[in-house]
Amino acid sequence: MKPHETRRASKAYVVGVGMTRFEKPETRDWQYWDMAKEAGTAALVDAGIDYAQVQQVPVGYCFQPSTAGQRAVYELGLTGVPVYNVNNNCATGSTALMMARQFVEGGAADCVLALGFEKMSRGALGGGGADGGAADFRTSPVARHYGVMAAAHGFEMSPPTAQIFGNAAREHMDRYGTTEAQLAAVGAKNHRHSVNNPYAQFQDPYTVEEILAAKTIHRPLTKLQCSPTSDGSAAAVVVSERFVESHGLGDRAVEIVAQAMTTDTEESFASGTCVDAVGQPMSRAAAQQVYEASGLSAADLDVIELHDCFSINELLTYEALGLCGEGESGKLVESGATTYGGRWVVNPSGGLISKGHPLGATGLAQAAELTWQLRGEAGERQVEGARTGLAHNIGLGGAAVVTLLRR
Amino acid sequence: MKPHETRRASKAYVVGVGMTRFEKPETRDWQYWDMAKEAGTAALVDAGIDYAQVQQVPVGYCFQPSTAGQRAVYELGLTGVPVYNVNNNCATGSTALMMARQFVEGGAADCVLALGFEKMSRGALGGGGADGGAADFRTSPVARHYGVMAAAHGFEMSPPTAQIFGNAAREHMDRYGTTEAQLAAVGAKNHRHSVNNPYAQFQDPYTVEEILAAKTIHRPLTKLQCSPTSDGSAAAVVVSERFVESHGLGDRAVEIVAQAMTTDTEESFASGTCVDAVGQPMSRAAAQQVYEASGLSAADLDVIELHDCFSINELLTYEALGLCGEGESGKLVESGATTYGGRWVVNPSGGLISKGHPLGATGLAQAAELTWQLRGEAGERQVEGARTGLAHNIGLGGAAVVTLLRR
Repeated sequence: MKPHETRRASKAYVVGVGMTRFEKPETRDWQYWDMAKEAGTAALVDAGIDYAQVQQVPVGYCFQPSTAGQRAVYELGLTGVPVYNVNNNCATGSTALMMARQFVEGGAADCVLALGFEKMSRGALGGGGADGGAADFRTSPVARHYGVMAAAHGFEMSPPTAQIFGNAAREHMDRYGTTEAQLAAVGAKNHRHSVNNPYAQFQDPYTVEEILAAKTIHRPLTKLQCSPTSDGSAAAVVVSERFVESHGLGDRAVEIVAQAMTTDTEESFASGTCVDAVGQPMSRAAAQQVYEASGLSAADLDVIELHDCFSINELLTYEALGLCGEGESGKLVESGATTYGGRWVVNPSGGLISKGHPLGATGLAQAAELTWQLRGEAGERQVEGARTGLAHNIGLGGAAVVTLLRR
Repeated sequence: MKPHETRRASKAYVVGVGMTRFEKPETRDWQYWDMAKEAGTAALVDAGIDYAQVQQVPVGYCFQPSTAGQRAVYELGLTGVPVYNVNNNCATGSTALMMARQFVEGGAADCVLALGFEKMSRGALGGGGADGGAADFRTSPVARHYGVMAAAHGFEMSPPTAQIFGNAAREHMDRYGTTEAQLAAVGAKNHRHSVNNPYAQFQDPYTVEEILAAKTIHRPLTKLQCSPTSDGSAAAVVVSERFVESHGLGDRAVEIVAQAMTTDTEESFASGTCVDAVGQPMSRAAAQQVYEASGLSAADLDVIELHDCFSINELLTYEALGLCGEGESGKLVESGATTYGGRWVVNPSGGLISKGHPLGATGLAQAAELTWQLRGEAGERQVEGARTGLAHNIGLGGAAVVTLLRR
């Protein structure tokens, strides 16, 4: 028996997606269940099914109390189906999607709704995970990750999450000559993409110069290359092959070709670098698993939604996904290879930097964007002829989820 | 296609279980990862396997921050496998078990570790779920459940959870003539059972008279018929048939014959009673699904671990599981039918009332107890000749999980 050999009862397909506009916290008068109802209803309408057909519901969120998933999906119906409340910090939405896929592939259900939401507070995230940094740092799940940072770089008074990623950027600059302009180019690209995304929290374009001139959060990261805190929800209906056939959903269906979740290994900590502590090794391992399972590679991808919580993480992820070699990511973004007209379009939605980042929703919003792209429904931000898409979602603490979708 | 027809790649078996002693919070100097390491290691040793063989890890807890599951299982190894942080209030542990079973049955993995833990604060639980009641009650996932209570009974100053169950007890007494002595008999039985359980937080026997004379928490519930807050962890190794065979684990293996999770339906709220709002309809529906899937009934059971968070809930669950008719549960416990020498032994571990109730661990501790019972390894609390066992775990908010195990 091979260690990770699996036996699938069915392929899994995304047949419906929906999301709310991502919003600055405290600007819209809504509760978490209002946003979940909006996104969940949109996904069901998109799939053309009723909530009564949904057999299981994994719900992702970090900041609401236990069973908030039930409170949220009870707005869609009180059918008594299993509801699982799941979290994995910033990889929470894709964790719900991963569960949905496995329930469908394993034959436990033919129709699963994966839903994620977050109602957040204004201001930067703390370093303590879902407690927003309020809890005793000594017992925080991310204490070891920040310990690596403190040992290598000391500790400054900037927001902890920006600080650990900012220090990863400093390491990348020192090691490979990556420039502040290259980091800013990630922000410029993603802000430019978001102009055409009505779901994005920000829809304003910025030049590289404007991004470099914005307020520094933790050098070299300026405000316009950091994802904001956001409220919002996203959802995906995942179904089996026989559900697709029996409901005539072939025209809506996007196949989940392969998917992997990885967590930290010794590699996260062994080098004592922030590049590794923020998860580049997890991302690389998850991508490798997905490529191996699918027989595809970076060369086969058309469109990518990846976890650009900070500009540096988009660069680290280019390397982890094999879009370029180690240390070459700064040049890659500068070359235009990752925007319209280039080799791939990365973060056509605007990414976390411009679209926003409600933790529980982000992974599912990536799936929504890719579904629209692969169906050719992405309007002005459509990536022409996109057939194969990859989503990458990562959380400190930690988990990386990579999902390969094909139409 | 039948709505809930499933296709299993494999049966699922519990081959290893472990738990810590459940402890009064703040009495033992340990962190959540210490308790998880202790329970997880015990389960792996019991199964005779290494953590390196574990392919996926659902981790249940309510009160720790996001990715605490990773922090906990990293103590067992840094193998990079998927970790899912899940919660469902008091049904959290069984939710992790439900995920493990489905991953194995569906062929996504041959070996899954389900682990649960909780490090709690002293004092009664609030009504707000995992936030301990601290959050805005208006946005609490259980607001509707407590709304039913307030409409029918008003609101007193006793701890919310004891209050809603206590009011369910008042309804049961009014409707069926259930007596305070019958409720106390549940506590007496479970405290008596715990005398032989070294994992139990309390191991002292009490008479019905002593229980009736104890401090009233919310009439008719006295302190000795309410589960305490507890620290602790429990774990179960769930594997496929081929894993059992290839590793020669037939002598350790207990089959998960059937399992169901239900959430609230309109029935939870329609009657306006606390009996329904605290979940008797969810429990009944979950039991029915399990009986239907297995072809077994209450008559086939030998040993039961059920969710006696308060004595009244043990009575409500007798009825939900079909051990007796509606309203007959008070007489059933009084008859001795649910203790040693009776028709079934219910809560041989001492139950939540005496063993303790760390939310994330409880459902897995039930599975541990049943595994020991069905293997004949339960020492002085062994239920003679037990072959078939049922676990029942419920959380307000809500979810009920019923699991049928057979040796």
